[in-house]
Amino acid sequence: MATVKLWTDEDVSADPRVSAVFADIRATRKSDFVNNFWRALANQPSLLERTWQGVKEVMVAPGVLDPLTKELIYIAVSTINSCTYCTHSHTAAARAKGMSPDQHAELLALIGLASETNAIANALQIPVDPEFLL
Amino acid sequence: MATVKLWTDEDVSADPRVSAVFADIRATRKSDFVNNFWRALANQPSLLERTWQGVKEVMVAPGVLDPLTKELIYIAVSTINSCTYCTHSHTAAARAKGMSPDQHAELLALIGLASETNAIANALQIPVDPEFLL
Amino acid sequence: MATVKLWTDEDVSADPRVSAVFADIRATRKSDFVNNFWRALANQPSLLERTWQGVKEVMVAPGVLDPLTKELIYIAVSTINSCTYCTHSHTAAARAKGMSPDQHAELLALIGLASETNAIANALQIPVDPEFLL
Amino acid sequence: MATVKLWTDEDVSADPRVSAVFADIRATRKSDFVNNFWRALANQPSLLERTWQGVKEVMVAPGVLDPLTKELIYIAVSTINSCTYCTHSHTAAARAKGMSPDQHAELLALIGLASETNAIANALQIPVDPEFLL
Amino acid sequence: MATVKLWTDEDVSADPRVSAVFADIRATRKSDFVNNFWRALANQPSLLERTWQGVKEVMVAPGVLDPLTKELIYIAVSTINSCTYCTHSHTAAARAKGMSPDQHAELLALIGLASETNAIANALQIPVDPEFLL
Amino acid sequence: MATVKLWTDEDVSADPRVSAVFADIRATRKSDFVNNFWRALANQPSLLERTWQGVKEVMVAPGVLDPLTKELIYIAVSTINSCTYCTHSHTAAARAKGMSPDQHAELLALIGLASETNAIANALQIPVDPEFLL
Repeated sequence: MATVKLWTDEDVSADPRVSAVFADIRATRKSDFVNNFWRALANQPSLLERTWQGVKEVMVAPGVLDPLTKELIYIAVSTINSCTYCTHSHTAAARAKGMSPDQHAELLALIGLASETNAIANALQIPVDPEFLL
Repeated sequence: MATVKLWTDEDVSADPRVSAVFADIRATRKSDFVNNFWRALANQPSLLERTWQGVKEVMVAPGVLDPLTKELIYIAVSTINSCTYCTHSHTAAARAKGMSPDQHAELLALIGLASETNAIANALQIPVDPEFLL
Repeated sequence: MATVKLWTDEDVSADPRVSAVFADIRATRKSDFVNNFWRALANQPSLLERTWQGVKEVMVAPGVLDPLTKELIYIAVSTINSCTYCTHSHTAAARAKGMSPDQHAELLALIGLASETNAIANALQIPVDPEFLL
Repeated sequence: MATVKLWTDEDVSADPRVSAVFADIRATRKSDFVNNFWRALANQPSLLERTWQGVKEVMVAPGVLDPLTKELIYIAVSTINSCTYCTHSHTAAARAKGMSPDQHAELLALIGLASETNAIANALQIPVDPEFLL
Repeated sequence: MATVKLWTDEDVSADPRVSAVFADIRATRKSDFVNNFWRALANQPSLLERTWQGVKEVMVAPGVLDPLTKELIYIAVSTINSCTYCTHSHTAAARAKGMSPDQHAELLALIGLASETNAIANALQIPVDPEFLL
Repeated sequence: MATVKLWTDEDVSADPRVSAVFADIRATRKSDFVNNFWRALANQPSLLERTWQGVKEVMVAPGVLDPLTKELIYIAVSTINSCTYCTHSHTAAARAKGMSPDQHAELLALIGLASETNAIANALQIPVDPEFLL
């Protein structure tokens, strides 16, 4: 259970500020489904607005990284930050954007290898090679 | 300073098992430069062999994710694991594989946004939507 | 499920050392409710005693930070450490000590922003300005 | 060293978009000093703008948490995220906003205690008490 | 629920590559029980093979650390990485290898103390004493 | 540089409360050397006293885990918590207590493997097998 109330569509419809964000989420994603993350943030309209604005700018607006690559990176960050909700939601999003089982497998192997070498490098406190500096 | 000795080329040449791995690193990367991570692992030949084997399989062998995408994901994982050495070495590697300033900028924005939403989702303990489950 | 048994009040009453700590928790908090954290620690009386002593000294004894501020900081630490139990228990404690929805909203925005800038600063390995040093 | 160039004031003056943000930082903080975090972000104007906007909204705009409390929470989050830069910069900021040695001492004791109990709760996988749920 | 399918024994029997690994797990552990970690990895045979190979080399092959000590360290790492699954599975494994309640209690006290002092040392950014360097 | 002053022996001698702890550290360890961790904590006598008390109870008092095993676990926790200071100080302590290069090598392999499997298990959100529960 969440530490705050999850807003139903009825709750949302009673609050114009929250309604506006939910309408934009639905229009932007071309889907009626609004997931629990936004239903929890609805308790805090200014945080809801800022967070959705950030997601639109970083994840929705066209950029130089393609949408699937962004989702793979989101899964990696969410995994290392131990965010159960985000790992599930972005794995689902990556699948919806075409992630194949082979791409998922390589992502997992990569997250695992990086975590292994990160831990070893931290345990050994290895100094950065001058060749890597700008 | 590292918590173990960093092996010089002279140290390496005196140990056939370590020499074999260093020779393979140089041949695989087509470069004489061997960075400190491997010079620290040289103290522990079986770990050196296993780790280099893992890197070859995951990062060098052709797969379905392209080499630059893999480096971007490696930077993301290393950043969240707070690995100074790995953040430097894989940012340098990503640049060497063609990461543009715009790609770096989007990666940073994405790592930042994901960490922000991960923290908020964890603070709110949001339950996973059934729609995200298999 | 916990990795150890959770002690019932009956279990507690059979062990004088554990009973003494539970009695002190109840007296200190002026409440009969003892939460699962202590029921799990009851398996390990010396750890139970040390941990409760620490909580009393840091969270209960009067100090220069007020009790609600302490709970907000506890939520922040628990969130970043990905502790589901502690995030729930200290969010409940903060509410009991008067945390308003607006204070919760600002706390969440702050935890999110700090995590975002922490990740970016770590990805960029920004050197500390001399002006910040003592 | 940073993984990107740190912009000097001369670099900044040659870029109108970056100049505008730096001017706003100086005006908002009533100080000519602009710390390295912003000089690193200057390489990526849209991230610079978004991040400064977030900091203004969360840390500068008046709210229900006082400015010193916000800095204490920022230190706590930065410490647990192992961000050397942010720990230094926000400890300096907290001092500038009046953090006393006694407040710092209590903050440290609290960050330590919370990390200790977080680790124990995670090791024991303690289930959340129904009493803590909404 | 997992983000991938968990393979049943029937699924496994239809795939020779996965079957070979499962047969080796059963033979090595002298038990018919194969836990969910391997049933999830079965979707990705090369990752399954590499990971099982790593576990055999590090956890099963005789070495200079005894098997129970290895499990205690595994619990410590899994706890700090906030891995629910691994904390449960390695606590069970440690018990199966003879971990006594007193050893578990000392492990918990140690994980808690180390996390407390780690957080304090990071908050204070304490410089490493020259005496600790090689 | 630390975010607080490091106390010299002269500073210590002027404060009876801090002097008492330093004297106990020296007597307990049978060594005149007092490392920077305690010199930083000296600014906050009650935290100094509580932390030293905790270290004495957990690390110094005889228990069921031997002193070297405790240091290995301390290194593991410190590594995953990304504590540079603690990784250095406890690697030095483990060496002083007899950690051999082979034991260090196995510890590193184990920390690496556990981090790898932790990350994969978190990415896959694998459900805990009923067999692992009490």
